[in-house]
Amino acid sequence: MLIDFVTLFPDMVLPALEHSITKRAALAGLVEFRATNPRDFATDKHRSVDDEPYGGGPGMVMMAPLVLAALEKIGAQPGHCAPNSRTRVVLTDPAGRLFTQNDAQEFSRLDRIVFVCGHYEGLDERVRTCLCTDALSVGDFVLTGGELPALCMTDAIVRLLPGAIGDPASHEDDSHSDGLLGHPLFTRPLEFMGESVPDVLLSGNHREIARWRRRKSLERTRQSRPDLFAGAKLTPQDVDLLG
Amino acid sequence: MLIDFVTLFPDMVLPALEHSITKRAALAGLVEFRATNPRDFATDKHRSVDDEPYGGGPGMVMMAPLVLAALEKIGAQPGHCAPNSRTRVVLTDPAGRLFTQNDAQEFSRLDRIVFVCGHYEGLDERVRTCLCTDALSVGDFVLTGGELPALCMTDAIVRLLPGAIGDPASHEDDSHSDGLLGHPLFTRPLEFMGESVPDVLLSGNHREIARWRRRKSLERTRQSRPDLFAGAKLTPQDVDLLG
Repeated sequence: MLIDFVTLFPDMVLPALEHSITKRAALAGLVEFRATNPRDFATDKHRSVDDEPYGGGPGMVMMAPLVLAALEKIGAQPGHCAPNSRTRVVLTDPAGRLFTQNDAQEFSRLDRIVFVCGHYEGLDERVRTCLCTDALSVGDFVLTGGELPALCMTDAIVRLLPGAIGDPASHEDDSHSDGLLGHPLFTRPLEFMGESVPDVLLSGNHREIARWRRRKSLERTRQSRPDLFAGAKLTPQDVDLLG
Repeated sequence: MLIDFVTLFPDMVLPALEHSITKRAALAGLVEFRATNPRDFATDKHRSVDDEPYGGGPGMVMMAPLVLAALEKIGAQPGHCAPNSRTRVVLTDPAGRLFTQNDAQEFSRLDRIVFVCGHYEGLDERVRTCLCTDALSVGDFVLTGGELPALCMTDAIVRLLPGAIGDPASHEDDSHSDGLLGHPLFTRPLEFMGESVPDVLLSGNHREIARWRRRKSLERTRQSRPDLFAGAKLTPQDVDLLG
């Protein structure tokens, strides 16, 4: 997989990927990361990347032609990806659709992803409508730029690439991997600040441990995230567990 | 404001803040960033930070005593923040409550925030229950660690500190600042890839421009994020605009 970042802050993006799983995946040849700066294509003497909004108002707006120039440089301009190619050009966009684990799974099967990182107050609407295949947000909060959201999506995607994580079974218990929050985990010591590890986890009874974990996962989801719980597919056993 | 990160990857966190608004806010003395590594408090010869989960299962679990040791080092252990202090210890937690712009606003009024970044498959439940005041998630996807979510929350919070952004009015048009998605923005050129800037933005009629922008913001929210739209407080004028 090839992941490009079109960003005004390449020095913020690439070093952040040189840690942990993204680093190991790159070293193992599972993924390659590249960054391209739209500022390199600015034509005025100040190398401006933004300009005032038409219609007035505060803030500056990033110019579409510079994003196009960056995409042309890396061969990802509109029309140059074959219709059936497994390439997506993703705008990180606070007004976009929310990125979820389903997207991470779908994107992990692509050959190439280009993240276009918006910055400053915003960017020209035509970046979204003319240049990108997707506009995605990571959450309902305001960030300075699209770099951190692009890094979040990258981490979520790359860790799903076959071989990226030593033990694929470790995916299965993650929060959000099956639409529920994960169950609580405990390790040594047996007692910490007056709180003991639940007896069931020490019982050696794997059936009871699995039931306890499922029940905790269901209870936690119902309590913390009723929105997720409302959409979860419960089995008759789950209903029994919740009593 | 003082923002601490308790993280196994301090070299991933601190450099990412040396850009753009977080950098300028630190240079201006509005915020100080520090990182503390739980691994520095490991006591075995391998400097282990995690151990197997009680009850079995894949993956490793970060040990609570090392997080406590890190918090003690920076004076943020439980009981050592005065009850009325404006300090929060935030666990970045995929099973936590979703962080939103309201949280960013509330947190921007604190004196101190400590982000405890979970890593690997998870961390001991007692970190959440005994050591942290909040458990927050940035979205419904699985990440390798809590560093990127902590950076997202930090950016969202720091840019709200008075003085962090040149023109505070630029906050007002942001997506999510008022529960709606932002309106489209356009800058030069007038035509790009066959798409022209909407005439109204060239009209000079500020009242019409404001109405057009509000309508686009409402329409975009209704279309892309019906969940946000359902919770938005609409004025009678908004209802008129939507026709």
